[in-house]
Amino acid sequence: MESFDVGIMIGSNSDYPIIEESIQIFDRFGIPYIITITSAHRTPQRTEKFIKYCEDRSVKIFIAAAGAAAHLPGVVASMTNLPVIGVPIAATALNGIDALYSIVQMPGGIPVATMPIGKAGAKNAAIFALQILSLANSELRLKLNNFRLEMKDSIVNQAEVLKIKNNNVFIDF
Amino acid sequence: MESFDVGIMIGSNSDYPIIEESIQIFDRFGIPYIITITSAHRTPQRTEKFIKYCEDRSVKIFIAAAGAAAHLPGVVASMTNLPVIGVPIAATALNGIDALYSIVQMPGGIPVATMPIGKAGAKNAAIFALQILSLANSELRLKLNNFRLEMKDSIVNQAEVLKIKNNNVFIDF
Amino acid sequence: MESFDVGIMIGSNSDYPIIEESIQIFDRFGIPYIITITSAHRTPQRTEKFIKYCEDRSVKIFIAAAGAAAHLPGVVASMTNLPVIGVPIAATALNGIDALYSIVQMPGGIPVATMPIGKAGAKNAAIFALQILSLANSELRLKLNNFRLEMKDSIVNQAEVLKIKNNNVFIDF
Amino acid sequence: MESFDVGIMIGSNSDYPIIEESIQIFDRFGIPYIITITSAHRTPQRTEKFIKYCEDRSVKIFIAAAGAAAHLPGVVASMTNLPVIGVPIAATALNGIDALYSIVQMPGGIPVATMPIGKAGAKNAAIFALQILSLANSELRLKLNNFRLEMKDSIVNQAEVLKIKNNNVFIDF
Amino acid sequence: MESFDVGIMIGSNSDYPIIEESIQIFDRFGIPYIITITSAHRTPQRTEKFIKYCEDRSVKIFIAAAGAAAHLPGVVASMTNLPVIGVPIAATALNGIDALYSIVQMPGGIPVATMPIGKAGAKNAAIFALQILSLANSELRLKLNNFRLEMKDSIVNQAEVLKIKNNNVFIDF
Amino acid sequence: MESFDVGIMIGSNSDYPIIEESIQIFDRFGIPYIITITSAHRTPQRTEKFIKYCEDRSVKIFIAAAGAAAHLPGVVASMTNLPVIGVPIAATALNGIDALYSIVQMPGGIPVATMPIGKAGAKNAAIFALQILSLANSELRLKLNNFRLEMKDSIVNQAEVLKIKNNNVFIDF
Amino acid sequence: MESFDVGIMIGSNSDYPIIEESIQIFDRFGIPYIITITSAHRTPQRTEKFIKYCEDRSVKIFIAAAGAAAHLPGVVASMTNLPVIGVPIAATALNGIDALYSIVQMPGGIPVATMPIGKAGAKNAAIFALQILSLANSELRLKLNNFRLEMKDSIVNQAEVLKIKNNNVFIDF
Amino acid sequence: MESFDVGIMIGSNSDYPIIEESIQIFDRFGIPYIITITSAHRTPQRTEKFIKYCEDRSVKIFIAAAGAAAHLPGVVASMTNLPVIGVPIAATALNGIDALYSIVQMPGGIPVATMPIGKAGAKNAAIFALQILSLANSELRLKLNNFRLEMKDSIVNQAEVLKIKNNNVFIDF
Repeated sequence: MESFDVGIMIGSNSDYPIIEESIQIFDRFGIPYIITITSAHRTPQRTEKFIKYCEDRSVKIFIAAAGAAAHLPGVVASMTNLPVIGVPIAATALNGIDALYSIVQMPGGIPVATMPIGKAGAKNAAIFALQILSLANSELRLKLNNFRLEMKDSIVNQAEVLKIKNNNVFIDF
Repeated sequence: MESFDVGIMIGSNSDYPIIEESIQIFDRFGIPYIITITSAHRTPQRTEKFIKYCEDRSVKIFIAAAGAAAHLPGVVASMTNLPVIGVPIAATALNGIDALYSIVQMPGGIPVATMPIGKAGAKNAAIFALQILSLANSELRLKLNNFRLEMKDSIVNQAEVLKIKNNNVFIDF
Repeated sequence: MESFDVGIMIGSNSDYPIIEESIQIFDRFGIPYIITITSAHRTPQRTEKFIKYCEDRSVKIFIAAAGAAAHLPGVVASMTNLPVIGVPIAATALNGIDALYSIVQMPGGIPVATMPIGKAGAKNAAIFALQILSLANSELRLKLNNFRLEMKDSIVNQAEVLKIKNNNVFIDF
Repeated sequence: MESFDVGIMIGSNSDYPIIEESIQIFDRFGIPYIITITSAHRTPQRTEKFIKYCEDRSVKIFIAAAGAAAHLPGVVASMTNLPVIGVPIAATALNGIDALYSIVQMPGGIPVATMPIGKAGAKNAAIFALQILSLANSELRLKLNNFRLEMKDSIVNQAEVLKIKNNNVFIDF
Repeated sequence: MESFDVGIMIGSNSDYPIIEESIQIFDRFGIPYIITITSAHRTPQRTEKFIKYCEDRSVKIFIAAAGAAAHLPGVVASMTNLPVIGVPIAATALNGIDALYSIVQMPGGIPVATMPIGKAGAKNAAIFALQILSLANSELRLKLNNFRLEMKDSIVNQAEVLKIKNNNVFIDF
Repeated sequence: MESFDVGIMIGSNSDYPIIEESIQIFDRFGIPYIITITSAHRTPQRTEKFIKYCEDRSVKIFIAAAGAAAHLPGVVASMTNLPVIGVPIAATALNGIDALYSIVQMPGGIPVATMPIGKAGAKNAAIFALQILSLANSELRLKLNNFRLEMKDSIVNQAEVLKIKNNNVFIDF
Repeated sequence: MESFDVGIMIGSNSDYPIIEESIQIFDRFGIPYIITITSAHRTPQRTEKFIKYCEDRSVKIFIAAAGAAAHLPGVVASMTNLPVIGVPIAATALNGIDALYSIVQMPGGIPVATMPIGKAGAKNAAIFALQILSLANSELRLKLNNFRLEMKDSIVNQAEVLKIKNNNVFIDF
Repeated sequence: MESFDVGIMIGSNSDYPIIEESIQIFDRFGIPYIITITSAHRTPQRTEKFIKYCEDRSVKIFIAAAGAAAHLPGVVASMTNLPVIGVPIAATALNGIDALYSIVQMPGGIPVATMPIGKAGAKNAAIFALQILSLANSELRLKLNNFRLEMKDSIVNQAEVLKIKNNNVFIDF
């Protein structure tokens, strides 16, 4: 039987461009994941089935992204004792504040680890999952440390690009 | 087997003083109801069991009150096709805005009829339930019409009380 | 005399693309409805006249959609004891929060069942109306249950579509 | 028949401590007013009757104070072409933001002059009414100008009081 | 010397498309007005000079529209005892909430009559000014009453237009 | 050298009553933790020193609670690649919304797992830490599953208590 | 003629307990200041007079604290080219958000340096003023550096106090 | 060694169009500045290094612009006792409210002078820096006073432009 490290849930195809930020991180770090479309309200049984499917395949962490009254992460958290990471999506006139409050304000007892609204949230959800996985994987920790160095380099590079436009730019030394 | 018209759910004993506003309306109008404490997240099976129990006893409407990331009304709505009325409770630092957004911003397909935050919401949930029930109960409709007249009288009475303090009060004529 | 199940009110032609979500549901389920344009403030008598017209033609439920200081649903609720469903519309710089608060925060005694802001709200208003109507119509209940199954199928279909782009998609089994 | 300059409406006795700020201004300036308790939703006919009663007694300005989904000022404005001043009251968990948005965001065509939330709003409603009345009453204008001077004096007095506690206070010269 | 009924202030040319809604009303009703560009902060003396200029030419009402930390209406109100109407403009990332709060939350003693954010606010500011002016001008009052009838007709016309698209539209009778 | 599983940071003694909710969970589950008071802004070196101290003693997860412009969790996350859990505290007039936004809206690349505002957040931070730790500790996972069962029992117990006051309470069966 | 470094303005005696946080800092650092009560709206001339008075006495920085539609800091900034620091006060139902937006969202061209809402803001206003003054005063800079060290010590002291209650506290080493 | 008056930090190249508003002011007034790209979280050491670099080159004021959970200004303030000016950027679904709260609500002891969200903020940050620098530079003060006069002229010019469209415009006299 196949096994995965992370199980990802989104509520509809329209959420996929957001969650691709997670997927790019997992692809880059070689982390096996399984993703599906399911809804807390429209397909509660399917949600439960997917969670069981994942738990049987040694999934260690769930990521659930949702907009509007974003119940999906909380409902997942009520069905498992694995860590659940929630990503709020700006999908309504309320610009993601509805999703943020629906995900982050979970009652005491059933935690959801909430990430920023939108693409930054999807990216951070994946990195946070890597941080958890690397507790038992020192090679992955090394890769994560390198990833930080690359972020630093990217900032220095950006400063170099800016230097072309503006002579008063500090690079490094 | 007993039968009820309304099934009520709250998340904990601390929500009871809010939902009492519903109960006083049901007691006054002689509407049989059944109430329980259950949680969308801590006791999802219990929530489902209560809904089945109610549906077997001819419950026609559900009322669910919840605070924080108030998923209970939406989760109930995902488990039944009976009308579900949601009452947001101000239970956190966000003063009920979290509960309001978590209840009202349900995705298309699974409606929850949202009432005001707090006691006014619990009262209106019950009156709204009576309005639904009276579609098939003309005697109840009459009682509801009388209830409106009493509200009107209560306002005239308040004006009379105010007249004692302030001479410039308009009463009626 | 013709008869209808649902009476719908919007404040102007510009609200029609929102309320079409309700109309598509009613058309699909074969529910007779009557719709008009009226304003709580600009045409209060017209609003009253429409309500009477509807009550004389056995309308059972009202739906009122409005933006800005959205008084229409509350004003309708003050003129009838039939259930009133309110749909907030994002029509101003406040992005529908003004409409949401103006509709949902009704004082105790005069309920309005509030739906989400915008198209999801219009869709859910219609489905909620169907849930009420199906209390006295078992055939309609069956159709509603089938509608849920279709929503489920649609989610599985979306997963299948996603599978084309991404190999790690869980479908069903 | 008696005549009044201002007609005041509040929704219940509990709003009276707020509107007393208006009344103290009117008493001080000798402006005849008439006040009542009425509700946009619970007593729409009574609201209309009061407006007629006032218009027959040469009322020139209406003040309406309300909390929650505060429709009263807008409903009054829909029934008259006299200027209507609205005072939002903080009466719910939303701390008066619901009332503010429900009063200020009136659609184009039916204005309500909105004042601050709470007591400052009730005071300013009365002063604003005086400013309108003084357009045709030069004696009243003079009194208003004196009132401003008194406000100035009160601020100098406060500085003098503060001087007792703190030696570095600037008074005037 | 020329005389005007209304003095209008905006903070920059970019606010003109908003305030044109006021101007169209004044043009239509034949109300003489004078408008200028001035800033509470960048040209306080100019603001004061304009107010004096207006008061010398029998202006009866001021309208001030502003965005961001919209101090202009309040600063005008601090310089005159004529009624001041404030129009919040959505000019920043905060979408007009900053302007709304800066205008409406004036301290007790110095009222500003606040209108809705944006074009609806500019339109209502003008209509509210007409309501004040018509207290001493019965011909204007008649025109205002006709204006309401036209608003009503416009709504009936909209219903007729909708009837072309949708057969279930209630017109009037 | 001692070793700990969790390193906890708060900004001042006044935050201790909030973080006690975490500590009670760790004490109950026998999880070794180390806690300190440190500030992102007032003692950045101390923060760094504590993180190093913890990493040398095999800490696996950090919890940081903070109010106002709550930078502590983000600053901790910038100094380590271990998972960081943030708990917003309501410590200012903004009621914790400032802390929530400052913690949850981290830029892409540096995740902080955000919990609810206040005591529920501190409790959930600890439970979420346990969920991570139990990935490598099956005995802890068992304890966590039992903890869920106790939460369920507590809800049934609450229903039993409510039954004393209200005869219409559903218990279980 | 006396001279001062800082000129402070508050709108009423009720703001004094907030601004005392500034005064304690100035007293402690031996910075001469002058304070008064004045209002942007009720005493605009007095505000201008105080600014002139201060400029004649070599004041270098202004601090203005205000609540509600807090125009005072902006109005001061419009009257001087000295740096103006604004402190929002929570004085209304909107809990200081109105004051914050009215102070911080100044239009381009007239800056106000905005501090946190309430006591933290008054304290930081004074420290920020010291930072400016110390640009030309190396002794003051030294004192400021010592002040930071004291803040650090205070945090270590707090940790020591906490150690009495909880054995798992990290102190320093 | 070169010397600068102002050190500017932004988090990425995408923030440059905002901070250009500062740079245009500095270029116009001939103020030497140094700018870099650095991140509170991704490059904390680089941030510290840049601050040291600046302090060694007699920088007197820092400006830091950031979006999302905008920690950069606060982190800079924790590393220096020079005045720090923060500019919130609207970079997420929360439209800059997250950045505003993260910058302005700094705890007591570590001030950040907060400017408006976006371009107006960047412009005002530069002008505020000039106001500080002009405390020790009377020529710069003169230039600042002239800048105000130009702002006034620009407003008169705008009025003249408007006069072309609308005959009722007040210019000056």
